[in-house]
Amino acid sequence: MKKLLIVLFLIVSVKSFSQNAADDVAYYCALCNNDCDKIAFEKPGVCNHCNMTLVKMSKAERMKELSWKPITVAFYLQDGVEVLDFAGPMEVFAYAGFKVFTVSKTTSPILSQGILKIIPDYSIANAPESDMIAFFGGNGERSFDSDVIGWLKSRESKTKYFFSVCTGAFALGKAGLLDNKTATTFHLSIDNLKKSFSKTTVVSDARFVDNGTVITTAGISAGIDGALHLVAKLKGEKAAIDAAYYMEYDKWTPKQGLILEAKP
Amino acid sequence: MKKLLIVLFLIVSVKSFSQNAADDVAYYCALCNNDCDKIAFEKPGVCNHCNMTLVKMSKAERMKELSWKPITVAFYLQDGVEVLDFAGPMEVFAYAGFKVFTVSKTTSPILSQGILKIIPDYSIANAPESDMIAFFGGNGERSFDSDVIGWLKSRESKTKYFFSVCTGAFALGKAGLLDNKTATTFHLSIDNLKKSFSKTTVVSDARFVDNGTVITTAGISAGIDGALHLVAKLKGEKAAIDAAYYMEYDKWTPKQGLILEAKP
Repeated sequence: MKKLLIVLFLIVSVKSFSQNAADDVAYYCALCNNDCDKIAFEKPGVCNHCNMTLVKMSKAERMKELSWKPITVAFYLQDGVEVLDFAGPMEVFAYAGFKVFTVSKTTSPILSQGILKIIPDYSIANAPESDMIAFFGGNGERSFDSDVIGWLKSRESKTKYFFSVCTGAFALGKAGLLDNKTATTFHLSIDNLKKSFSKTTVVSDARFVDNGTVITTAGISAGIDGALHLVAKLKGEKAAIDAAYYMEYDKWTPKQGLILEAKP
Repeated sequence: MKKLLIVLFLIVSVKSFSQNAADDVAYYCALCNNDCDKIAFEKPGVCNHCNMTLVKMSKAERMKELSWKPITVAFYLQDGVEVLDFAGPMEVFAYAGFKVFTVSKTTSPILSQGILKIIPDYSIANAPESDMIAFFGGNGERSFDSDVIGWLKSRESKTKYFFSVCTGAFALGKAGLLDNKTATTFHLSIDNLKKSFSKTTVVSDARFVDNGTVITTAGISAGIDGALHLVAKLKGEKAAIDAAYYMEYDKWTPKQGLILEAKP
């Protein structure tokens, strides 16, 4: 009789555990910062509030995501900015739940790649502070004039991370942020970066270089790799792998860059 | 004496040939459709007219580029369009000299990825004809309403190529353009595409599928591969390799997709 009771107890316990584990898994929209972020859908599909495709995860995973304080990132977009330079990192950061906004010299529309008309969210006169400032290539270094570099310098003590893609490195260099650091840039601008910033060690064989708080990447598509590295560094490698998987960046290899200082 | 004359003739000929070959090579800006496209610079650097980085090539190569009649491409951008879906192909096509313009339901600004404010060039009421029409994912299929699909259908006989990235495939499907064809889409929407379009063979293991004039790609970053394939198909493989090299898309493998009909 005692044995029978133990067996019955075990059966009930296992059944109850299985049910709890099953109950815990649901389908959630990718974080969109709307109320629907908290809705657990029973079936896969599309969120009927924000239209994002639903992703399977446990309630605990979603709660952890929601409790994470988003990294804020100012994307400086100059007239003539190369479209993939900024769009790759924007895709990565958005999926990872970072809060991205755009800044330009003024709030007048700019033209990216000679094609895409963009209205910046802020000018350098009214842009809010952010955890990270990012610069991108396109239209030569002359876009990074004394006003823009003055703004960047004024944010140095209030900003934790500086990120550049392609020839965006010249903005960081002009502001002195690459002094005594290692950096990279667009492959056709490596020599120019060397000549321009004698206090910087310029490397040509890295997809990105992480000095700890100053991260530069090679040209154009390498911004995707730099952004995925930043997500891994600031939110954990799983978040970066999830983003790469979601965006079907199949050939991505984590840590495929020069990491001089891994700590956040 | 005769031997000496022959040797002298050969020396002069070789020198002259070398000079001609050397004279023929110069540095040109990436095609920007301005007058500077024809300027041959003596040294590498940046074009002082359009600010594009100069690329080394022969005069013959540049003349061939200039004589090529650009492919025109209408990028349909709905509110909520996924930023990398369209920005990858825009980067590729722009570098390859295709003429890209943007179209939306109206010319009111749209928001991409919840972040980027874009002013479309045209609405579906006034968009010019083009060699290619491209659709992208983001914001669910509901963006592709009867007005948009009506516009797409009205362009069917005047447009040579139809291209979709990610869930942009649903627009092509709704217009009947995927009937009796093979197609792919974003990995989380494969089942939905199968259910929605019973006359379409849907594959989940191809980065892109080329039916000849209808080309669909997998999700988000796969648009880059689809666009590079289209450049190879319509302008030659060298043009695609040049674009991939320029944008540092290092891991790209030409033809890594399902090519059912290779002919332009």
